[in-house]
Amino acid sequence: MKTVGYAAFSANAQMAPYHFERRALRGNDVAIEILYSGICHSDLHTVNGDWGPHPFPLVPGHEIIGQVIDVGADVTRYKVGDKVGVGCMVDSCQHCDQCDHGEEQYCRHGLTVTYGGLDRITGEVTQGGYAKHIVVREEFVLRIPAALDMKRAAPILCAGITTYSPLRTWGVKAGTRVGVIGLGGLGHMAVKLAVAMGAEVTVISRSASKDADAKKLGAKGILVSTDAEAMKAAACSLDLIVDTVPVKHSVDLYTPLLDIDGTLVIVGQVGPMGELMSVPLLLGRRRVAGSIIGGIRETQEVLDFCAEHNIHPECEMIRPDQINDAFAVMEKGDIAHRYVMDMSSLAL
Amino acid sequence: MKTVGYAAFSANAQMAPYHFERRALRGNDVAIEILYSGICHSDLHTVNGDWGPHPFPLVPGHEIIGQVIDVGADVTRYKVGDKVGVGCMVDSCQHCDQCDHGEEQYCRHGLTVTYGGLDRITGEVTQGGYAKHIVVREEFVLRIPAALDMKRAAPILCAGITTYSPLRTWGVKAGTRVGVIGLGGLGHMAVKLAVAMGAEVTVISRSASKDADAKKLGAKGILVSTDAEAMKAAACSLDLIVDTVPVKHSVDLYTPLLDIDGTLVIVGQVGPMGELMSVPLLLGRRRVAGSIIGGIRETQEVLDFCAEHNIHPECEMIRPDQINDAFAVMEKGDIAHRYVMDMSSLAL
Repeated sequence: MKTVGYAAFSANAQMAPYHFERRALRGNDVAIEILYSGICHSDLHTVNGDWGPHPFPLVPGHEIIGQVIDVGADVTRYKVGDKVGVGCMVDSCQHCDQCDHGEEQYCRHGLTVTYGGLDRITGEVTQGGYAKHIVVREEFVLRIPAALDMKRAAPILCAGITTYSPLRTWGVKAGTRVGVIGLGGLGHMAVKLAVAMGAEVTVISRSASKDADAKKLGAKGILVSTDAEAMKAAACSLDLIVDTVPVKHSVDLYTPLLDIDGTLVIVGQVGPMGELMSVPLLLGRRRVAGSIIGGIRETQEVLDFCAEHNIHPECEMIRPDQINDAFAVMEKGDIAHRYVMDMSSLAL
Repeated sequence: MKTVGYAAFSANAQMAPYHFERRALRGNDVAIEILYSGICHSDLHTVNGDWGPHPFPLVPGHEIIGQVIDVGADVTRYKVGDKVGVGCMVDSCQHCDQCDHGEEQYCRHGLTVTYGGLDRITGEVTQGGYAKHIVVREEFVLRIPAALDMKRAAPILCAGITTYSPLRTWGVKAGTRVGVIGLGGLGHMAVKLAVAMGAEVTVISRSASKDADAKKLGAKGILVSTDAEAMKAAACSLDLIVDTVPVKHSVDLYTPLLDIDGTLVIVGQVGPMGELMSVPLLLGRRRVAGSIIGGIRETQEVLDFCAEHNIHPECEMIRPDQINDAFAVMEKGDIAHRYVMDMSSLAL
């Protein structure tokens, strides 16, 4: 199946149009016409080679919204015309304990990521959602609830699940005191989701400049991390901190904000965090954890949760030919929204 | 009340005899003649000023076994002749949420440590168990079960509770896969306690030299942390790691040993741990935590548990006048036992 997309042809290169083939449908495959495609900070990291070398050309994108245009002979869950999504995974072993209990992201045999992974049958490199079409086995296709605005749903498939999963894992409920470090693509979703769960949410940021943004999302406001007095006054005031900062930073500044038995969960930075001090951990039995995305069942759950609570990511719609401009803005720092490409202008 | 002990008169000084006063009994106080006094690595850290400056003279010691020789007018729990112990705390606020649920070690107003703390009423500096007598309020006095050998019970009050508490907090039970890093005073107790809980215990050490020791304590054996192949083969094989290493070290070598959702809990090092990598945390939702000692109720529980399971720390009995030799050995590295002073040779 012929398709077209935007690819990086080498590390740090500008994204450029790329015509390529999607595989012929296997029995359990669903072919999707991509309507909207979200742009994640990790796309940029991957293209830049920050996480190691990748095969090129590379079509990024793992926040995919579209509709079913064809199904394989054995597909039972979807039919042509269904509104669907694809997130960060397109396959896993499907028989280990982790897959069995719906946590394919921790598959014992390694998940197959949506782009830059290796197809489990052919060994071909997977290509992502900056494209007109994608072919994915039905087990990794999500249903987009009718109440969600398709145009603004894409970031739920990465930013949404990445923050929803730890909020659920650590039992956030009405009254839980949640801190969110950073108010970018992940952070703003963490705030919306935690607020919808009934949590009392504080955004932790280097400056108060996003205070109005934070409040608009339902947070109490900003705790300014460079204000030593305010940070000291906020000691022991949080049950869970979701740390969305996507660059190297020490957690030592933040762990004293946790109450006894509280957890700081890293979801942003992939790599060195800098120095770790044991004292704040010891003195409050505090924990530092990490979490990646979430399983397929939980990804469906966050889509349904967002539909139920009328939560949509803050999206700025762009055309695929504006991708390089969007990358340039994202290079400069956090933006309190996600860029989403409307793929309608992309033609074979 | 006159007593005598061994004190440091300045940082890094040799310990020397010291005659001093214990306070007159308050209504809720218990006066104890100390029979056995354990030597903890933290005593050495404190004397050396590793954890900051301390007032001198300083009488260390927070693994105290003795018998009651007098009680205040309002004491109801103990009577003269009772076999008792005192651990790392001698007071706390007694009315905050943490004290209310028996976790005085995390008292909101700060616990009063057994030595080098400030008495909550007089503001005097507390002095520890390297002495002939101590006076402690009854709420912080433990009962030594008849089945425990008094001579070998002292280290339960620090090394025992420090390792028992995280084993309980993280729900160790039959079949739990527990790793213990280091086989010193804390580590050997962690092994004994975890084995008694039914756990499958692996000791992680830089060399295999303590393999026989580890097996004698009930562990499966040693995983050699400098053997890269063995470490790789052991990835994801542990549910909980108790990290007893009392010096700076990165946890990155060990976190990949944890299974999904596993926790490494720091109980040894107080201070910088070195660099922290997020990747092993992210890829298995793993956690790094800290824990200090345990509450009074849990300290009584570990004493009772040790009595029930016939667990005694490995003790080498010395006289108080041998303390400087013991410190010298401890300076050189881990010893798979605890020094315990038999105080009978110490006279006023």
